[in-house]
Amino acid sequence: MLDRCIGTHRVRQIQRAIRHGKITLLCLFMTVVVLRGTIGAGKFGTPEQDFNDLRNHIYASRKHAEPHRVLTESNQSNNSKNDEANSAGDANNYAAFDINKILVDEGEDEKPDPNKPYSLGPKISDWDEQRAKWSSENPGFSNFIGANKPRVLLVTGSSPKPCENPIGDHYLLKSIKNKIDYCRLHGIEIFYNMALLDAEMAGFWAKLPLIRKLLISHPEIEFLWWMDSDAMFTDMAFEVPWERYKDSNFVMHGWNEMVYDQKNWIGLNTGSFLLRNCQWSLDLLDAWSPMGPKGKIRDEAGKVLTRELKNRPVFEADDQSAMVYLLATQRDKWGDKVYLENAYYLHGYWGILVDRYEEMIENYHPGLGDHRWPLVTHFVGCKPCGKFGDYSVERCLKQMDRAFNFGDNQILQIYGFTHKSLASRRVKRVRNETGNPLEAKDELGLLHPAFKAVKASAS
Amino acid sequence: MLDRCIGTHRVRQIQRAIRHGKITLLCLFMTVVVLRGTIGAGKFGTPEQDFNDLRNHIYASRKHAEPHRVLTESNQSNNSKNDEANSAGDANNYAAFDINKILVDEGEDEKPDPNKPYSLGPKISDWDEQRAKWSSENPGFSNFIGANKPRVLLVTGSSPKPCENPIGDHYLLKSIKNKIDYCRLHGIEIFYNMALLDAEMAGFWAKLPLIRKLLISHPEIEFLWWMDSDAMFTDMAFEVPWERYKDSNFVMHGWNEMVYDQKNWIGLNTGSFLLRNCQWSLDLLDAWSPMGPKGKIRDEAGKVLTRELKNRPVFEADDQSAMVYLLATQRDKWGDKVYLENAYYLHGYWGILVDRYEEMIENYHPGLGDHRWPLVTHFVGCKPCGKFGDYSVERCLKQMDRAFNFGDNQILQIYGFTHKSLASRRVKRVRNETGNPLEAKDELGLLHPAFKAVKASAS
Repeated sequence: MLDRCIGTHRVRQIQRAIRHGKITLLCLFMTVVVLRGTIGAGKFGTPEQDFNDLRNHIYASRKHAEPHRVLTESNQSNNSKNDEANSAGDANNYAAFDINKILVDEGEDEKPDPNKPYSLGPKISDWDEQRAKWSSENPGFSNFIGANKPRVLLVTGSSPKPCENPIGDHYLLKSIKNKIDYCRLHGIEIFYNMALLDAEMAGFWAKLPLIRKLLISHPEIEFLWWMDSDAMFTDMAFEVPWERYKDSNFVMHGWNEMVYDQKNWIGLNTGSFLLRNCQWSLDLLDAWSPMGPKGKIRDEAGKVLTRELKNRPVFEADDQSAMVYLLATQRDKWGDKVYLENAYYLHGYWGILVDRYEEMIENYHPGLGDHRWPLVTHFVGCKPCGKFGDYSVERCLKQMDRAFNFGDNQILQIYGFTHKSLASRRVKRVRNETGNPLEAKDELGLLHPAFKAVKASAS
Repeated sequence: MLDRCIGTHRVRQIQRAIRHGKITLLCLFMTVVVLRGTIGAGKFGTPEQDFNDLRNHIYASRKHAEPHRVLTESNQSNNSKNDEANSAGDANNYAAFDINKILVDEGEDEKPDPNKPYSLGPKISDWDEQRAKWSSENPGFSNFIGANKPRVLLVTGSSPKPCENPIGDHYLLKSIKNKIDYCRLHGIEIFYNMALLDAEMAGFWAKLPLIRKLLISHPEIEFLWWMDSDAMFTDMAFEVPWERYKDSNFVMHGWNEMVYDQKNWIGLNTGSFLLRNCQWSLDLLDAWSPMGPKGKIRDEAGKVLTRELKNRPVFEADDQSAMVYLLATQRDKWGDKVYLENAYYLHGYWGILVDRYEEMIENYHPGLGDHRWPLVTHFVGCKPCGKFGDYSVERCLKQMDRAFNFGDNQILQIYGFTHKSLASRRVKRVRNETGNPLEAKDELGLLHPAFKAVKASAS
């Protein structure tokens, strides 16, 4: 275990030091201190500490290669027959119902031509011009809402099939409610996808064809915000600092050194990112996609990624690892337009956040977006829609409830309510009704947030 | 059965006629013809025919008194203990997980004072003035988006508890995706409620405190659109004719004669309605609520409603029956501001619609909103979230899938896709990609619909 923590070289150093006794004890002591500091959920902004935590906790999650739950291929048998099969008593009983009765299999997907290289679609080279022309002809669909606020489409989704386990869909439902709330407050539209547009790009890769399709269909969108279904908003008051990204086209949570120097497979996270609607982004999607096509290509690409990236386990190519690889090997081409953001939690790994909610409530307030009050809590590895997760089911679901309530409290307080506790579905009143409701101010100013007011402007 | 169809008097007539032979046969023949015409799903716009269908099919649904699935009281025991209870193997296995491990019961709700009459909140008498003042001070939150389009908030919701049966949450998820799609196209915001704000007004009555709270918190809203979680949009192109309602404050699907003349308990439907944000509406909510408080009041009110309304079964007071009763008995007070709409399906009973989808596709097109292409298909009585529905589970779920796909196809066609069939989750491409995506027009004009364009206007 030591050499996993601190490198092979150091192990030999320690072996030499053992012969010197005192130095040995000192080194061991330091190791324990560092590990403790790490497990204690280190300070925000210290990549190494966050990293060790992340790596130790999410090794297996990528291994199972089913992180996004966006789309899965169906292997359903056609059992849908006539109603008489049900006895009259059981016919209306959902508990006795076998869902396979209504699953429909439309046959296999068409096999792609193995000699034809994969493509997301016909090459477009003048998207910026096409977009500009369209915008000038369609002033009613401006790219900007107000002076500094771009038009944003938040994209998420899940499988069209019911979750394999009974509880998964309930958490998908809570998750989309959570997103609806944040987006309503921040003037962001939502696209919830439940269609597999390209059978070759199933699983975590499915977002690529979807994103491309949405960008080129909606020139009015300035930024597309992809967000996994297992990620939740936990800071309802935090507005993304759009101005910061005026010269960037692609924003992910991550650390430059982890990606460009270390090629660490979790140096960035593709579970929540911003992508500008422009030619550069279409080119990026084209460059990103080649490792995606399932089967031999994806498997072989996975081996390359495991070999080339730091700490990556063995499994088929995933979109996140592929992005690390792409950026690390082609920094000159893409790097100047990529912003690896770590000043706030555009993606926040749940393992280091959820036990601190009470502490956050005690010491901080919404609007910070960072380790003090994370914008996003992302339940990587929990996989409540599947059969098996990488963590204890009880811990995952409990914490997802807590994260949901943590965010929901910020919505409820607008109306004078709050959850009885972070573990409880029940709510209680915390502000009395009056005959002059418009004089009441919600503490967070979320009732009529400034970032939502539409300023009259000539389009 | 005869006297149920045609009245007690006629039965005696028939009994006399039996002695005359020929007349007997003639009457029996007429009865059969009328019934056949009814079961054949009569013409739209003929209340009697729709009514007999509705009544025969949904008698039991109200009886079970759990139609909306918005909020239910929880009687959960606190079984949530520590993680060690799970064996290491089962700990990550969702299939082996007992959800009761994480359910939290925060104790009973406070008992309301039995001597205090129920109230939705402190009386407000100058809401129009308060609202007007606020609007003038907050020009960034106009009541109208564009010339003729009011700001609308669509409100829906479901229980914070997982559904009792495994499949219910999946259909809630599909239902909210469906609403997200419609509302995105039509510039409508969504509020998804999962909180029981007032324990006394649980069940179908829970929408009243919620609606009141949202109206008085959001003066910028011009119309609140309540929609049940078991109702789905099936016409994505249909824009509500807002102009038609400029002198109305409350719009429900229904028939004047059924409500005012017959006092028929299903003369209108409160599963999908529009309520203007104004003093009149606050007063209406106050007048509507007295039958709601659970327990003795609701039970006794239920008996009154069964007695007073036509065809109502015996069960506790529900909001819909109460509204029929309120309007029928106080027409002078409320009638002039209530619009009972039947020119399109603001609410469309699923039983007479779902078998006709293929016929609709063959003969008509989206944008009609009526019997030819219903705006809303409402699965009254199906109750997929509960244990028992009033209809065969297989029929309900199959039809809900079809309705979902019927609506979803209108979204997918924007992007050049469609479901392989109304029964299939899979999609197929129907329009090829090109290098000039902005020249492609989607047939329905939903890509950049006119009703969504924001016209520059001075606020």
